[in-house]
Amino acid sequence: MRILVLGGDGYLGWPTALHLSARGHSVGIADNLARRSYDDELGTASLVPIADLDERVATWNDVSGHVVAPFVVDLSDFDAIDGVLAELEPDAVVHFGEQRSAPYSMIDRAHAVYTQVNNVVGTLNVLYAMAERDRSIHLVKLGTMGEYGTPNIDIEEGFIEVTHKGRTDTLPFPKQPGSFYHLSKVHDSHNIAFACKAWGLRATDLNQGIVYGQQTFETALHPRLATRFDYDAVFGTVLNRFVVQAVSGHPLTVYGSGGQTRGMLNIEDTVACVELALLHPPAPGEYRVFNQFTESFSVREMADLVVDAIPGEHVIEHIPAPRVEAEEHYYRAAHTKLVDLGLAPHLLDAVVIRGLADVVAEHVDRVDPRVMLPTVDWRMPLEARLRR
Amino acid sequence: MRILVLGGDGYLGWPTALHLSARGHSVGIADNLARRSYDDELGTASLVPIADLDERVATWNDVSGHVVAPFVVDLSDFDAIDGVLAELEPDAVVHFGEQRSAPYSMIDRAHAVYTQVNNVVGTLNVLYAMAERDRSIHLVKLGTMGEYGTPNIDIEEGFIEVTHKGRTDTLPFPKQPGSFYHLSKVHDSHNIAFACKAWGLRATDLNQGIVYGQQTFETALHPRLATRFDYDAVFGTVLNRFVVQAVSGHPLTVYGSGGQTRGMLNIEDTVACVELALLHPPAPGEYRVFNQFTESFSVREMADLVVDAIPGEHVIEHIPAPRVEAEEHYYRAAHTKLVDLGLAPHLLDAVVIRGLADVVAEHVDRVDPRVMLPTVDWRMPLEARLRR
Repeated sequence: MRILVLGGDGYLGWPTALHLSARGHSVGIADNLARRSYDDELGTASLVPIADLDERVATWNDVSGHVVAPFVVDLSDFDAIDGVLAELEPDAVVHFGEQRSAPYSMIDRAHAVYTQVNNVVGTLNVLYAMAERDRSIHLVKLGTMGEYGTPNIDIEEGFIEVTHKGRTDTLPFPKQPGSFYHLSKVHDSHNIAFACKAWGLRATDLNQGIVYGQQTFETALHPRLATRFDYDAVFGTVLNRFVVQAVSGHPLTVYGSGGQTRGMLNIEDTVACVELALLHPPAPGEYRVFNQFTESFSVREMADLVVDAIPGEHVIEHIPAPRVEAEEHYYRAAHTKLVDLGLAPHLLDAVVIRGLADVVAEHVDRVDPRVMLPTVDWRMPLEARLRR
Repeated sequence: MRILVLGGDGYLGWPTALHLSARGHSVGIADNLARRSYDDELGTASLVPIADLDERVATWNDVSGHVVAPFVVDLSDFDAIDGVLAELEPDAVVHFGEQRSAPYSMIDRAHAVYTQVNNVVGTLNVLYAMAERDRSIHLVKLGTMGEYGTPNIDIEEGFIEVTHKGRTDTLPFPKQPGSFYHLSKVHDSHNIAFACKAWGLRATDLNQGIVYGQQTFETALHPRLATRFDYDAVFGTVLNRFVVQAVSGHPLTVYGSGGQTRGMLNIEDTVACVELALLHPPAPGEYRVFNQFTESFSVREMADLVVDAIPGEHVIEHIPAPRVEAEEHYYRAAHTKLVDLGLAPHLLDAVVIRGLADVVAEHVDRVDPRVMLPTVDWRMPLEARLRR
C-alpha cells in the first residue's frame, strides 16, 4: 500500500511511518516541523534527544533498507500538499498533521486562533486535494476521545441510536470538547463527515485516547530513530509526566482531585491501530469512527500505579486544576471496533511503567523541573492575566 | 440597553439595528462591508437599491432623531473589534457578522476556507474580547436551523435528553450540517458553548430558519433605509427568489423534487426575535439555543403558494438539485422558546406574498435572469470542474 503520513515527524507520526514502512508499505512523510518550533517557543525539549528529519530518514534507510520519502510542507499551503498527493499517488493518507496540545491552544487568543485555523484549514486542504485528485484515497485521521467530553451516558464509537418521541435515528454522538484544541478536532470531524457525504470520500476518524510510552519496535532499533518524549505541562501527556516526576524526584502533580477518567493506550498500540484501519478501509462515501484506546484510568489511579511501580519514595501532590473539566464523573466508552479488527492491546502494568522509567533514567540529566508545572489557565487567557 | 450589532450593514443586521434603535436602545454597528464586495465578485446586486452605510445612518438620524454609530471594522482584526467594545461598553453584542451563503461556501476550496476562517475566527475574536473586557455582555449569535440537518427524529432547541443503556443525560443536539457554511455555524456553536463554560460568558444562539421579506416598519420609512433584497442563486433565499421569478416572468426553479422542508420566518419576526432574546438574557455562564422560525414549508409548497398568490400564469420547473441533501425527509422542529417570550409571528399567506411582489414589481427592471440559476455544484468543486 502507498501511504502518506502527515505530521510524520511528530511524537506518533514518526513511529507510525516507521511501523508502516517496516510492514512493507511504501511510505511518504509530510511535515512542516512545527512541533520542533513549539519547543523553541516554549523553551522545552524532548527528554529523549531526537534526530533531524533527514537524519531519521537516512538512519531508517541504513537500518532497514526501506526508503521513506520526506516532504517538508505546510498543510495550510494547498498547492504544496496537492503536489505531494500528485507525486505519491497514495492509497491512503494518515493525518497526524495538527497542533495537538490542549494547553497550547488555551495559552491566549493567538494560540486558540492558530490551533483552530491550522487544524481546520489543513484538513480542509487535504479533503479538497483528495476530492480533486482521487476520491478513492482512504483518509485515516487522528481525532481524540476528548471530542466526546464526559457525558453521563456511555460513549459509543462516533454514532448513537436515539429514540425520541416515538422515532429512532442513528446520529453523530453529541460532542462536548473541553479546549480550543479539542474543539478543532470536533470541527474536523464534522467537516470530514460532510466531505464523505458530498464527495464520496472514505475516512476513518480515530478518536484516540491519551498515549503513553516512548518506544516502538522500530524506534528502538537505533538512537537516531527515537521519537520524542514530552513531559512538560503543555505538550507532555499525563502518564509520561508522572514517570518523569517519579524518576527525577519531583512530586507527581495531580490536577484537582484526580478523578478525571480518560481512555489510555500504549504507543505500540497506536501504530498497530493505524495499520489495522488502513488494512480494513471503509466503503466509498463512508465516514466511520473508531475509539482508539485500550483501558480507562483516572488520573489518581495513574499516579498510584506509577508510585507503586517505581522503587523509592514518591509524593503525590494535588494542585488546583488549570482546566475546566469535571473532576469526578461517569465514564464508560466503547472501544471494540479495533479489537474486532485484531488489535491485541499492550496493557498498562508495573513492567511497562518500569520500562518507561528506564528510558527516563537514561536521560534524567535533561529533566527541566521548571516546565512540569502548569502555566496555562483555562479560565483566564494570558492577555487578561497580564492586564490585571 | 447598549447594543453592538456586528454585520449591521447586511440584509438582516441593518433592519435589526434600526429596530433596536427605534425601540430606544443605544445602538452601534460594526461591519467590514463584505456583503457589498461579494456582489462585486459575483456580478450581482440587491434588487432594491441600497444606500451606503454612511447615508443609511445619516438618513436614520434625520427620520428618527436617533443616532446609530457605525464602525467599519473586520472581525478578523482583534484589536479593531476589541477597540469597539472598549469604546461602546455594550450590554449585548448581536452577531450577524459572518459569511452567510451556503452556495458561496461551496464554490471552491478558497471560498470554503474563507467562510470557515472568517466566521470561526471572527467569533473567536468576539468571545476573547468579551472574556477580557466584560464577561457580563450577552452575546446574541445568529446560527441556523441548517446546523441540525434533517434527522429522522424531532429537532429540539439545541439540546436533547438521551436515555442510553439505562442512563440519561441532556446533551447537545447532534449536528448534521450540509455545507461548509452550515459547518462554520456548527463550529461556532461548539466554540461559544465552551466559552460560556470556561469563562462564564452568556450567549443565545439563534438557530434561524430561512428569512423572507424585505421590509420592516423602520426600513419602510425612507428609501435610503431599505435593506437589500437578494434573488440570485448564491445569496438569494428561496421564497424571495420565487417571487422575483414569478413577477419577472421566469420559471420558478425548484431543486429536485422540492420535498426539502425548512423552517421559515418573516424578516419582521427576525428583528422581533433578536429584541426578545436581548430583553430576556440568559444567566451568567449559560449557553442557550432558540430555534428562530415560525412555520415549516417544503420548497414545493412555497412554489405553489407563490404561484397561487401572484396573478398570472407561472411555470414551476424542477431542475437537478445542486446541493447534497435529502429531497424527501421527516421534518419536525421545536420552536416554542421565542413564542414563550412573547413572539407574535407574522405568518406566510397570499397577502404577504403579494406585498413582496409589489416590492419586486417596483424594481423589476433591475432583475438579471442570468444570476437566478445555480452555478455552484455541491458534488464538484470549481477546480475539479475546470480540470475536466
